[in-house]
Amino acid sequence: MAPAKKGILERLDGGEIVLGDGGFVFALEKRGYVKAGPWTPEAAAEHPEAVRQLHREFLRAGSNVMQTFTFYASDDKLENRGNNLQFTGQQINGAACDLAREVADEGDALVAGGVSQTPSYLSCKSEDEVKAIFKKQMDVFIKKDVDFLIAEYFEHVEEAEWAVHVLKSSGKPVAVSLCIGPEGDLNGVSPGDCAVRLVKAGAQIVGVNCHFDPTTCVKTVKLMKEGVERAGLKAHYMVQPLAFHTPDCNRQGFIDLPEFPFALEPRILTRWDVQKYAREAYDAGIRYIGGCCGFEPYHIRAVAEELGVERGFLPAASEKHGMWGSCLDMHTKPWVRARARRDYWEKLKPASGRPFCPSMSTPDSWGMTKGHGDLMQQKEATSEEQLKQLFQKAKVNI
Amino acid sequence: MAPAKKGILERLDGGEIVLGDGGFVFALEKRGYVKAGPWTPEAAAEHPEAVRQLHREFLRAGSNVMQTFTFYASDDKLENRGNNLQFTGQQINGAACDLAREVADEGDALVAGGVSQTPSYLSCKSEDEVKAIFKKQMDVFIKKDVDFLIAEYFEHVEEAEWAVHVLKSSGKPVAVSLCIGPEGDLNGVSPGDCAVRLVKAGAQIVGVNCHFDPTTCVKTVKLMKEGVERAGLKAHYMVQPLAFHTPDCNRQGFIDLPEFPFALEPRILTRWDVQKYAREAYDAGIRYIGGCCGFEPYHIRAVAEELGVERGFLPAASEKHGMWGSCLDMHTKPWVRARARRDYWEKLKPASGRPFCPSMSTPDSWGMTKGHGDLMQQKEATSEEQLKQLFQKAKVNI
Amino acid sequence: MAPAKKGILERLDGGEIVLGDGGFVFALEKRGYVKAGPWTPEAAAEHPEAVRQLHREFLRAGSNVMQTFTFYASDDKLENRGNNLQFTGQQINGAACDLAREVADEGDALVAGGVSQTPSYLSCKSEDEVKAIFKKQMDVFIKKDVDFLIAEYFEHVEEAEWAVHVLKSSGKPVAVSLCIGPEGDLNGVSPGDCAVRLVKAGAQIVGVNCHFDPTTCVKTVKLMKEGVERAGLKAHYMVQPLAFHTPDCNRQGFIDLPEFPFALEPRILTRWDVQKYAREAYDAGIRYIGGCCGFEPYHIRAVAEELGVERGFLPAASEKHGMWGSCLDMHTKPWVRARARRDYWEKLKPASGRPFCPSMSTPDSWGMTKGHGDLMQQKEATSEEQLKQLFQKAKVNI
Amino acid sequence: MAPAKKGILERLDGGEIVLGDGGFVFALEKRGYVKAGPWTPEAAAEHPEAVRQLHREFLRAGSNVMQTFTFYASDDKLENRGNNLQFTGQQINGAACDLAREVADEGDALVAGGVSQTPSYLSCKSEDEVKAIFKKQMDVFIKKDVDFLIAEYFEHVEEAEWAVHVLKSSGKPVAVSLCIGPEGDLNGVSPGDCAVRLVKAGAQIVGVNCHFDPTTCVKTVKLMKEGVERAGLKAHYMVQPLAFHTPDCNRQGFIDLPEFPFALEPRILTRWDVQKYAREAYDAGIRYIGGCCGFEPYHIRAVAEELGVERGFLPAASEKHGMWGSCLDMHTKPWVRARARRDYWEKLKPASGRPFCPSMSTPDSWGMTKGHGDLMQQKEATSEEQLKQLFQKAKVNI
Repeated sequence: MAPAKKGILERLDGGEIVLGDGGFVFALEKRGYVKAGPWTPEAAAEHPEAVRQLHREFLRAGSNVMQTFTFYASDDKLENRGNNLQFTGQQINGAACDLAREVADEGDALVAGGVSQTPSYLSCKSEDEVKAIFKKQMDVFIKKDVDFLIAEYFEHVEEAEWAVHVLKSSGKPVAVSLCIGPEGDLNGVSPGDCAVRLVKAGAQIVGVNCHFDPTTCVKTVKLMKEGVERAGLKAHYMVQPLAFHTPDCNRQGFIDLPEFPFALEPRILTRWDVQKYAREAYDAGIRYIGGCCGFEPYHIRAVAEELGVERGFLPAASEKHGMWGSCLDMHTKPWVRARARRDYWEKLKPASGRPFCPSMSTPDSWGMTKGHGDLMQQKEATSEEQLKQLFQKAKVNI
Repeated sequence: MAPAKKGILERLDGGEIVLGDGGFVFALEKRGYVKAGPWTPEAAAEHPEAVRQLHREFLRAGSNVMQTFTFYASDDKLENRGNNLQFTGQQINGAACDLAREVADEGDALVAGGVSQTPSYLSCKSEDEVKAIFKKQMDVFIKKDVDFLIAEYFEHVEEAEWAVHVLKSSGKPVAVSLCIGPEGDLNGVSPGDCAVRLVKAGAQIVGVNCHFDPTTCVKTVKLMKEGVERAGLKAHYMVQPLAFHTPDCNRQGFIDLPEFPFALEPRILTRWDVQKYAREAYDAGIRYIGGCCGFEPYHIRAVAEELGVERGFLPAASEKHGMWGSCLDMHTKPWVRARARRDYWEKLKPASGRPFCPSMSTPDSWGMTKGHGDLMQQKEATSEEQLKQLFQKAKVNI
Repeated sequence: MAPAKKGILERLDGGEIVLGDGGFVFALEKRGYVKAGPWTPEAAAEHPEAVRQLHREFLRAGSNVMQTFTFYASDDKLENRGNNLQFTGQQINGAACDLAREVADEGDALVAGGVSQTPSYLSCKSEDEVKAIFKKQMDVFIKKDVDFLIAEYFEHVEEAEWAVHVLKSSGKPVAVSLCIGPEGDLNGVSPGDCAVRLVKAGAQIVGVNCHFDPTTCVKTVKLMKEGVERAGLKAHYMVQPLAFHTPDCNRQGFIDLPEFPFALEPRILTRWDVQKYAREAYDAGIRYIGGCCGFEPYHIRAVAEELGVERGFLPAASEKHGMWGSCLDMHTKPWVRARARRDYWEKLKPASGRPFCPSMSTPDSWGMTKGHGDLMQQKEATSEEQLKQLFQKAKVNI
Repeated sequence: MAPAKKGILERLDGGEIVLGDGGFVFALEKRGYVKAGPWTPEAAAEHPEAVRQLHREFLRAGSNVMQTFTFYASDDKLENRGNNLQFTGQQINGAACDLAREVADEGDALVAGGVSQTPSYLSCKSEDEVKAIFKKQMDVFIKKDVDFLIAEYFEHVEEAEWAVHVLKSSGKPVAVSLCIGPEGDLNGVSPGDCAVRLVKAGAQIVGVNCHFDPTTCVKTVKLMKEGVERAGLKAHYMVQPLAFHTPDCNRQGFIDLPEFPFALEPRILTRWDVQKYAREAYDAGIRYIGGCCGFEPYHIRAVAEELGVERGFLPAASEKHGMWGSCLDMHTKPWVRARARRDYWEKLKPASGRPFCPSMSTPDSWGMTKGHGDLMQQKEATSEEQLKQLFQKAKVNI
């Protein structure tokens, strides 16, 4: 029998770096298993081989956490706006746990059960109703005996607190991450204040994920850390940013960028951008370092390679890579072999190949958040008439 | 027993559109199974589950051809410059055939055995020596009974002719595609003349793949078609371009761009770029339409969706997609639902998010081709001294 | 005899818009009469016809103020770093007053005598020494009976206060403008605090000029206005920004941009950018609106045209222009006549024509200000050895 | 009495470099004396001081030619589309000659009388009618005894030939320059063929001006030179390009760019761009080197400085400049002094400061030339109805 793996808190308390995984919904959307719009994870039950393969690629790239593919797998989201699925929430959450465990056991990874923000909260449902939704997912995670829990992708600290309250009741370690930037949550609560509230709610690990690029996310977690330390509290910190450059975002993050979600390609981070990020996150004292939407296995490998000295080893996938492009010494063309060096890749300013496109965009900025009528969700599909009104609104807003 | 599938020529002769697949070496490099530099396909034997999964994703996206993952799988390339592999060429080629067949049989796809240009030709080996290399791969393909053969990624029409000569001897249909642009092959033979020579050599399908973006590739195939028709000959046409914008390429193609191969992200095509490409290729009379490096499953799905009316059906992966972004009508945020329309995505000029980067680059343009001393290959790894000379040369050339 | 013109305060108190002029040093550098580097105004004495012509162009464009061409005309600056001139400070200041008066009397313009920051302050000379320098220039202005005085282009509020103290002693109205952005002066004094100090020192008009683009400058003056109003004080406000886009500036302003001063062309404002600026400045409650470096006569005309309704008339130079491009209805080519409309020019996003260049730069940020040894000035020319050290430093700082 | 100046042919035959001047209509439009749209030169009579000053600035910058400010000063253009002027063609042409002569006599410059393409030709008037128009302008030039004649800015070689025929009858040396690019004139006549026809018509100097950037213009003149030499003929060559980068132009040149004429700022050449141009022109064997629209005095000075060694002297305006930025050694800020070197300016890729704008545009490409109904000119102003139709057409063409 294999020796028990060290738990998440044991690792972090011991000063280890924990590598998160990358973004499942974006990666699997491109592979053909997730629908953009609803972004629900039925593939865990529907196409387990595809989800398993992606887990394996992240494991191979160096991830220490197999997060269950349960993003937006709450019952209210699974049946939102006509999203007619053939699997129940329980089936999807259960299948996701099994896949994560199967692959985690192929290496040194833990399984984290994940919940995320709910349409119910956005639609002003009560605290009890929202908590009941989290509880339902958590019950599956507990039954499947995941190693720890993550509440992630919250735009409002209040809802995240509710999630932490629920998850804490399990006795498992709890991590929580908001999808906010330096300006704070959608009600204007600052990153520092958010973090304090979440630590007080019982989370052992706090941070941010999604919605912003690495630079912005690391900056936000720094503000969280400062807030927590100022309050005389203690926590571990996590960061899982987008793999997209978003210098032009407003407080809503990349959702508001006109390119979301089908034209973000020119913004994708190179592996060298990721190495820079990994170093900055590490230098900021963050020890749970991963990625969110856009992070592909090679991006996670780049984190692992940048922190290879600190971690003491390279991941399996580095067998098919060379640090800083050194594998190019095997290319047939001499001018490509001449690029087999750190200096070259570190300084390169990559061209977009798109001379007819700008380098920044203006976010939509409709400026609405929880409580606004347009954010009320519905079980029925969006009607033609509803869409027509939105198209009209979009034109006026330009 | 399932009814026999229609062969490649039967389909093309009947006016059907044949969808190629995407680029394996780039996709699997990002997933952690292929090493950039050598770019060899040992994963077929080493990590079959990863290769099988990628085949499946392309099948699901609409591909009619499962090309064996045998790019650069000639013996001389497999052991070039210290590329020390644990599998023989025969093992890799054989494993690749098995995987392609397995997945092809899950749907309406054919298996194509593929050969590509050799370091031997670049190193001025004789016609007999080069042909013997192609023959060795072909023998495996014949034994595994592939449906047809493709000779692809040739920079010199002469080597492609040799390949066609060898492949024709099998009696299987032969497709051939060069990696050239409108300026012709690296010896300056025009696309029209190249095509005529290849048709005369016996190829039934001619075209281009890799090295250039869709616009450039379609333009090049048009020139081929004009040449063939001017010569009073007949052929089918294929195109499998990069999924990268390359308006700044010289005759060598994207290999010469400073971003190759590790900083091409900002150039990646959106799905809408691909739909435009599919239409242009179709309008140019090309009927074998696929992709090369950079083409991920969602890019192939975009080809299938653009040509859905002409083909009469949508691919399986379209269950997780909506034409022209229509699936966004299920998004929780109203301003994102407002993007659920063709008009929006068709007109969008996506920002790079990189204000410190240019939109075009200057290619390296060392200007050497077959026969140049620096292009002689070697079994031993590139030495430190050899690298040092190249780094020096690169600085001088700036 | 012509009726006496209304004074500057009479105009502003009466709610009139006062149009400043544009930037003399940059415009005359391009015309061949000012040397970049020293940027001194000896042309007033050396080539009066060139200075007179530029005054006339601004008058014709709508300027209500002929500012004496006495920027950097303090004695310590005129002989700084080997700037060997054939005219004394008194000659230059006197000639500049004569030219300004001559042209002002051709229309409805006032003459403003101007002083600016001194190398003496940067070199840590005493308050008395610095004040004596301002006094020397002012004595000429008083003798020539200018209409009011401007102390402009100060990076440190302290030196500006000293200037205001001196100028106030004349009994003439005093305007003062700093070359700072929203982050405040180089010692970190906020715009609001700067403005309060300057109003308390006796300035009737406060604002900013130079160093930043219109958006940044208007934002800074707004902060000044808020500060003054919060302090229960009263003032008029002025703004004279660069005619260059500077979204990438740090606190030092455009001096720190790598393009300063010889590659700023791609940043030059169009006339439509200027109209947007004029409207924003007006809406912010600023009534003294002009330009600084980069502002050519047609930029000032654009201010006059944007505010034509508010001012009740158009300037003389509008005879050779049409509002919002309407004059293009006389072009010989129909597609150019089709551009004779506001809608067209207002929405256009002009291309740079430079696909190999980025859209933003990284400022030098050597991060030194008054008191730093490297900022000590000298009478002798910069030596080869001094330059060599700087070149070396520049390389290290990249 | 001063010794007679060497004539234009004497200079060119002797191998001297002749520096042209810059663009009057664009420069004077920005100064407030020329109306964009008609672009007529009534300022010569209306505001002689402004025209004189610009001549002086070009002389001071190194120009050897004072071209009369008579662009579009043919009678049919002066009264086109409601251009209601207070001066006759004779008055304008005469005044322009006087001004050019006055300033030419202040230095070593010749006076060139200039004619340009006519609306009559565009409106399909007969050869006799068009020639009569040229004759009328030429008669003034002869009376004023200019030193040589230039027929410039022709889109159709046929009209240029007619102009040369007329000008040759004067006995003065004749230069002729088309506003075409490498694709040839608007009827598709190649640059080589155009040049041969013009030399055969009697021109001693041939070349191109306006419509394209320096790179494109030098390339076009090279094609002309090759054509002339292939035909066994002899000529001198001239080039006077735009001071705008136009990599995105079609055959119509910058008129077709959406930014023409009021948003070309981001495309303006730096002085360093101009030095590169001057070198390329010289290396191509062109000896009459100047500029057209966008060329300001400092651009011409840059030509003179780049070719200072070859010419043996620097122009007067270089007193207020230092080669390759060396004058920055007198700047007060050390990091700006660190830019006082060639290496710095030669390598700099200047940012646009416009992250929301693209780097290239799509030309209008309405695709009409002489003979098309929409190109017929009229004496009456363009009517509201005519404009409305054009606005509609512009929308459809997008």
